[in-house]
Amino acid sequence: MDINILLGEFFGTMILVLLGNGVVANVLLTDSKANGSGWMVISSGWAFAVLVGVFVALAFGAPAHINPAVTIGFAISSGDFSNVFPFISVQLLGAMVGAVLVYLHFGPHWKVTEDAGLKLASFSTGPAIRNTGWNIVSEAIGTFVLVLGVAAIFAGDMSAGLGPFMVGGLVWGIGLSLGGTTGYAINPARDFGPRLVHMLLPIPGKGGSDFAYGWIPVVGPIIGGAAAGAFMIFFPVF
Amino acid sequence: MDINILLGEFFGTMILVLLGNGVVANVLLTDSKANGSGWMVISSGWAFAVLVGVFVALAFGAPAHINPAVTIGFAISSGDFSNVFPFISVQLLGAMVGAVLVYLHFGPHWKVTEDAGLKLASFSTGPAIRNTGWNIVSEAIGTFVLVLGVAAIFAGDMSAGLGPFMVGGLVWGIGLSLGGTTGYAINPARDFGPRLVHMLLPIPGKGGSDFAYGWIPVVGPIIGGAAAGAFMIFFPVF
Amino acid sequence: MDINILLGEFFGTMILVLLGNGVVANVLLTDSKANGSGWMVISSGWAFAVLVGVFVALAFGAPAHINPAVTIGFAISSGDFSNVFPFISVQLLGAMVGAVLVYLHFGPHWKVTEDAGLKLASFSTGPAIRNTGWNIVSEAIGTFVLVLGVAAIFAGDMSAGLGPFMVGGLVWGIGLSLGGTTGYAINPARDFGPRLVHMLLPIPGKGGSDFAYGWIPVVGPIIGGAAAGAFMIFFPVF
Amino acid sequence: MDINILLGEFFGTMILVLLGNGVVANVLLTDSKANGSGWMVISSGWAFAVLVGVFVALAFGAPAHINPAVTIGFAISSGDFSNVFPFISVQLLGAMVGAVLVYLHFGPHWKVTEDAGLKLASFSTGPAIRNTGWNIVSEAIGTFVLVLGVAAIFAGDMSAGLGPFMVGGLVWGIGLSLGGTTGYAINPARDFGPRLVHMLLPIPGKGGSDFAYGWIPVVGPIIGGAAAGAFMIFFPVF
Repeated sequence: MDINILLGEFFGTMILVLLGNGVVANVLLTDSKANGSGWMVISSGWAFAVLVGVFVALAFGAPAHINPAVTIGFAISSGDFSNVFPFISVQLLGAMVGAVLVYLHFGPHWKVTEDAGLKLASFSTGPAIRNTGWNIVSEAIGTFVLVLGVAAIFAGDMSAGLGPFMVGGLVWGIGLSLGGTTGYAINPARDFGPRLVHMLLPIPGKGGSDFAYGWIPVVGPIIGGAAAGAFMIFFPVF
Repeated sequence: MDINILLGEFFGTMILVLLGNGVVANVLLTDSKANGSGWMVISSGWAFAVLVGVFVALAFGAPAHINPAVTIGFAISSGDFSNVFPFISVQLLGAMVGAVLVYLHFGPHWKVTEDAGLKLASFSTGPAIRNTGWNIVSEAIGTFVLVLGVAAIFAGDMSAGLGPFMVGGLVWGIGLSLGGTTGYAINPARDFGPRLVHMLLPIPGKGGSDFAYGWIPVVGPIIGGAAAGAFMIFFPVF
Repeated sequence: MDINILLGEFFGTMILVLLGNGVVANVLLTDSKANGSGWMVISSGWAFAVLVGVFVALAFGAPAHINPAVTIGFAISSGDFSNVFPFISVQLLGAMVGAVLVYLHFGPHWKVTEDAGLKLASFSTGPAIRNTGWNIVSEAIGTFVLVLGVAAIFAGDMSAGLGPFMVGGLVWGIGLSLGGTTGYAINPARDFGPRLVHMLLPIPGKGGSDFAYGWIPVVGPIIGGAAAGAFMIFFPVF
Repeated sequence: MDINILLGEFFGTMILVLLGNGVVANVLLTDSKANGSGWMVISSGWAFAVLVGVFVALAFGAPAHINPAVTIGFAISSGDFSNVFPFISVQLLGAMVGAVLVYLHFGPHWKVTEDAGLKLASFSTGPAIRNTGWNIVSEAIGTFVLVLGVAAIFAGDMSAGLGPFMVGGLVWGIGLSLGGTTGYAINPARDFGPRLVHMLLPIPGKGGSDFAYGWIPVVGPIIGGAAAGAFMIFFPVF
């Protein structure tokens, strides 16, 4: 495998998490100029995080999955699992480095933010209503729409360069419409990598990293991505 | 008729309603992280719901009407009514399945939401001011703009793949500008299908499904779509 | 002149004002579901109003000025004034019909809205701080950016169909950034046509139509558009 | 060097600052109709400011850096420093003229705005938490993403005319996600030029121009842009 492809998935996921977790920190951390600016800012921020992350990954010649659930979904639909392990490895590493950059970017804001929950939320998702079954369903549905949507977008002609914006629009939609239940991780690397970083970094006044919940935004998205992969096998129009 | 075309209208409408009704639930249901985030989120969510629904329908080779009023409008303008009944049937079914997915996605939020009206609003529209005549006028004007806009967009060259985003932008505009009177159903399947699902599902603490109003977002959009079809006959530039 | 070109300017301006004044009514009128949703909704609504209006005008084969200031600006830069009078005439008529459609769309909301100023604002602009000189400067600067921006956009290759969205984005930007001083008429037809309609229609509880101010959003945009036309002569890169 | 290229960088930066600083003034100055409309408006306004500024610069045949940090970044990656001094000179002049236009556009609003800090913010950025080291880190990270993102975007095929919108989307994302710490100058000309204008203009009730901070949004972006240039040398895929 071309090393540039792995670099593309690494840097693409890094930028995705820098801008994506960045918008959460921007809205939640005390004294940020964007503090309290709400769901429109959160969901728009993630959309453009996807846009930029995909452009960076594409520049390296990577397919720009920047998400293990997407990698797994397309592995299932294509029957080619050769890139699953290397892609997920670099996506996870990229997400961790992205989370470290968010930590650095908001340097003095961690100390002035009193609520430990807001600090964790700037790294990883948590449920609005804690319920294992329903939380998995939510993450699976969101990720199913993501992977199916990506497949549908690229079933069309994206040769004019619209692809990254359309995928960004897809994630904009998922966040706006389905994000309020579990915070729409819909990407195991985006959630688990930063959660590890939250555990490891010396964040002032931080609480626990909530690994009791942390497996759900890994398993839920994998289920959803795999279901979309199966859907594409059953309906081979994609 | 190719079964894939019907599948496209089915799944496209399903995704439209999953994301479209999803954003209403996301904003209205208690404890959602997007609770109370307002009209910008609602209208943007519907815009991207259209974007993703159209992409999914197009992937199956469908024309991506995903709306009986659009199907009727173009049947009138073209004089070919052969797909009206099958399209509307699968659009209605798709909308119903989409509404069930919204119900599942927001699993534990139905119980914690006390206001039965907010629960119904997550399925179907209701008027800001109940007035049969004016409500029909509102739905008809909104749908006229929708169908005329779709025709105008595709009168141009959309070969670079911009079509789904432009139709999404059209619906963004209709929602932002005309949505506050009746909640802009502008699509009989989007409103009537989920209303049936609201009646059938065991939603905790639900109220009535308001079928007394429910015929208006069916008849109004049909009038508006038919008027746009007639407009296209009269001005054959589309 | 092809009648379709005039029809395009007519219907394009009609849709522009229906959706553009529509978003103001949607945000300001009592009991609208979008009531109080603020500047982001207003400026986004006008952006998509432009998008849809331009698409409709283009479908008729019109150049899609849908704005006398744009028509005047390009007449000055090209030296061809032949379409100035017919274009402005149909743009004004289209804006008036669009305002009537807004009146119909929000049928029962006029009566429940007590503030006469909010009703006038749903037709025509008014200044944040009334000051003849500065208000003209504001309208002229906004319109200069509009006409220069349109010229710059179409100096590039818009053959893939991006033009209407880019012009919409331009107006999005003008509204977001420069709209708060005078409400950014930046279009004499958009302001004067609906002001006449406000005077003529039997709106319950309406106040005066403020023609004392009404000449400013006519003269200011003409100055700005003419200045952009002169700029294009001086810098013939457009 | 073709004079039109310098004119393009001049007018492009002028428009960037007119619309970009314009949105800050629009949100912050007393009695503006957009007063208090928040971070979504601010970040969207800057995005479309970039869109329009890039279109104007491109129309003159300029590369549309409209930002010294971008010019420096690409000078480092290409090894060609010949346009660094002339570009930065005209970008700074353009930013100053843009700031004067903002001053004129909001004519009567300066006097009615009591808070001198809000007036300065309509010209130049300031930190949420004043901390030299962290503020430089924030500006450097934001600008690194900007320059890397621009390079990634144009590594793809932007021949259909999508480039200006994609760069606008990139800046939308940076503002939404990383802007709350230092107000994301990410452009030395955008910050220093207007700061000089703030010092020079007779703004009623203005305070100091805070040059004690003013060097940070110059140095931080240069570091970030240079780092992105070095990144492009190390990873020659761009």
